[in-house]
Amino acid sequence: MVPTVQWHKGIVRLLDQSRLPEHVDFLDCHDADSVARAIRELKVRGAPAIGVTAAMGVALGAQSIAAGDYDSFAKRVGEICDQLAATRPTAVNLFWAIGRMKRKLTDLRAQPIASIKAALTAESQNILEEDIALCKAMGRHGAELIKDGQTILTHCNAGALATAGYGTALGVIRAAWEQGKKIRVIADETRPVLQGARLTAWELMEDRIPVTLITDNMAGALMRQGRIHLCVVGADRIAANGDVANKIGTYSVAVLARAHHIPFYVAAPYSTIDLKTKSGDHIAIEQRSPNEVTTIHGSHPVAPKGVDVFNPAFDVTPAEFIAGIITERGVFKPEELARQFSS
Amino acid sequence: MVPTVQWHKGIVRLLDQSRLPEHVDFLDCHDADSVARAIRELKVRGAPAIGVTAAMGVALGAQSIAAGDYDSFAKRVGEICDQLAATRPTAVNLFWAIGRMKRKLTDLRAQPIASIKAALTAESQNILEEDIALCKAMGRHGAELIKDGQTILTHCNAGALATAGYGTALGVIRAAWEQGKKIRVIADETRPVLQGARLTAWELMEDRIPVTLITDNMAGALMRQGRIHLCVVGADRIAANGDVANKIGTYSVAVLARAHHIPFYVAAPYSTIDLKTKSGDHIAIEQRSPNEVTTIHGSHPVAPKGVDVFNPAFDVTPAEFIAGIITERGVFKPEELARQFSS
Repeated sequence: MVPTVQWHKGIVRLLDQSRLPEHVDFLDCHDADSVARAIRELKVRGAPAIGVTAAMGVALGAQSIAAGDYDSFAKRVGEICDQLAATRPTAVNLFWAIGRMKRKLTDLRAQPIASIKAALTAESQNILEEDIALCKAMGRHGAELIKDGQTILTHCNAGALATAGYGTALGVIRAAWEQGKKIRVIADETRPVLQGARLTAWELMEDRIPVTLITDNMAGALMRQGRIHLCVVGADRIAANGDVANKIGTYSVAVLARAHHIPFYVAAPYSTIDLKTKSGDHIAIEQRSPNEVTTIHGSHPVAPKGVDVFNPAFDVTPAEFIAGIITERGVFKPEELARQFSS
Repeated sequence: MVPTVQWHKGIVRLLDQSRLPEHVDFLDCHDADSVARAIRELKVRGAPAIGVTAAMGVALGAQSIAAGDYDSFAKRVGEICDQLAATRPTAVNLFWAIGRMKRKLTDLRAQPIASIKAALTAESQNILEEDIALCKAMGRHGAELIKDGQTILTHCNAGALATAGYGTALGVIRAAWEQGKKIRVIADETRPVLQGARLTAWELMEDRIPVTLITDNMAGALMRQGRIHLCVVGADRIAANGDVANKIGTYSVAVLARAHHIPFYVAAPYSTIDLKTKSGDHIAIEQRSPNEVTTIHGSHPVAPKGVDVFNPAFDVTPAEFIAGIITERGVFKPEELARQFSS
């Protein structure tokens, strides 16, 4: 699998996901500004991948700070953190990763600046490597829920491309496949940005895991026909009560799944769980440009000029619709999360 | 409103709906072949409009038949009917309109060929004019269901563009608007062919009826927020038990509406009701080219080459999800239809 994000000869190299699947291009970011822009413009997306990339953006920005004393250095690193935190509001992994970099900075305040810079780079690498390890652990736990011969619906891309590698929801599917289970994936295309069509279908085809692409509005009809056995999606933020913010359309899938008695699972690492947010009602939902809905890829128009548009990037699925949340520590009922992860 | 289909100086002139909203072009069909091709290629679409167009195709084809005796003439008209009937399998209005042209042909078998040709043209005009009158009657009945200030979700295009004029679901909305009710329409974009984005949004904007465009996967989230008060859609075929075949995604809207206690209505004229089909399970569902899903407008790719795709053009919504069927005779419970329309 092509790496989503990597530290490459002192710069941050991103797979440009906005150009997949037609073009497998890399975007080299030489400063924190260009990392922030890449996150904002969805060159890199997916909650865990955004967290890893932001951490690398902090490390990259820190390298070029000329300040000789800790206070000036820390002030400038803080500004870079604020800039990266302002890129997208919903995925909590972004704030979690930046918070971890800030703690490292504070912990090392007695060290020489050069050592702190090296430690920040090392910390961003740790976050990246841990992310892959967390995904593999989620995969092991989640794969037990999938039976041989089942067809699994997923929405958006919660795959290797949404993480540092392996994936959350697709990590679960990948692990089941690696265990030799003959499964098939139904991928919602996931309008408006088409992460399912462009990324999930591509990623699974690269791994030769059977995948069938559908438009988002076909899921209900397939469920009624008994052709979907299980749903698994990722998450951008999980509130303390187990409510899940994820890509727009996730809530509809969850309601349809419940109406057809199909279990609906969410796969996410601990960094997605936000115990400070009481319920889904308190999660800020990013509104994106109407242009994403009225055009394809920003250029090809599909609607009349000037039409009024809603374009929330995410929706909230209440905990009651979720059969289980697949984490690196095991699969939990949404209401058990707070107890499991409060320590 | 631009006419969808018209008899213009001895030819059939169609508004080319595949090029809307960017281009308002007309397609002149000089023979039944080109009418059949236009239906197959979705230049004209929408169950009632397909029926009207097919009737005109029969009339047009009949004009150019050289046969001097009734039997040869009728045989050739029969072949034209078969060709037009083979264009699309799901909308029953197609078979209904062709059946009506065939009956006219048989009824007039004692007449001179020239008179039959004139009568077939007149019959296709009758079908067109009746269609508009039926839509206006549906509008009057359906508008009573809509309260001032409500927001109405619709899926696909069941508008003036899907009929000879005025529309079925959008006819109901149009009638409520003409009564001075301050309403707003939420239009599902309706992937893969985007009839909601391209046609419904365009048609409502032309009439200055407030419309907001969403991707299909946003409906659930908006319903949960209490922002949708009523759903109304058209139909391609209604079985005797009240099950409704309509554009893919209709079933998902119906399930979501029920989960949120939002009434879900279907608007359709008597020609859409197929009492010979017992239930939705017996309705043939057209499978269309994967190309509609993997590209936009057949040219702009949005998915990896060679990906496996489902592309059913329609789904079936069981009668139990439908609050009422709005017809030209009034609004009926799905289970009352057979009794109302069996005479």
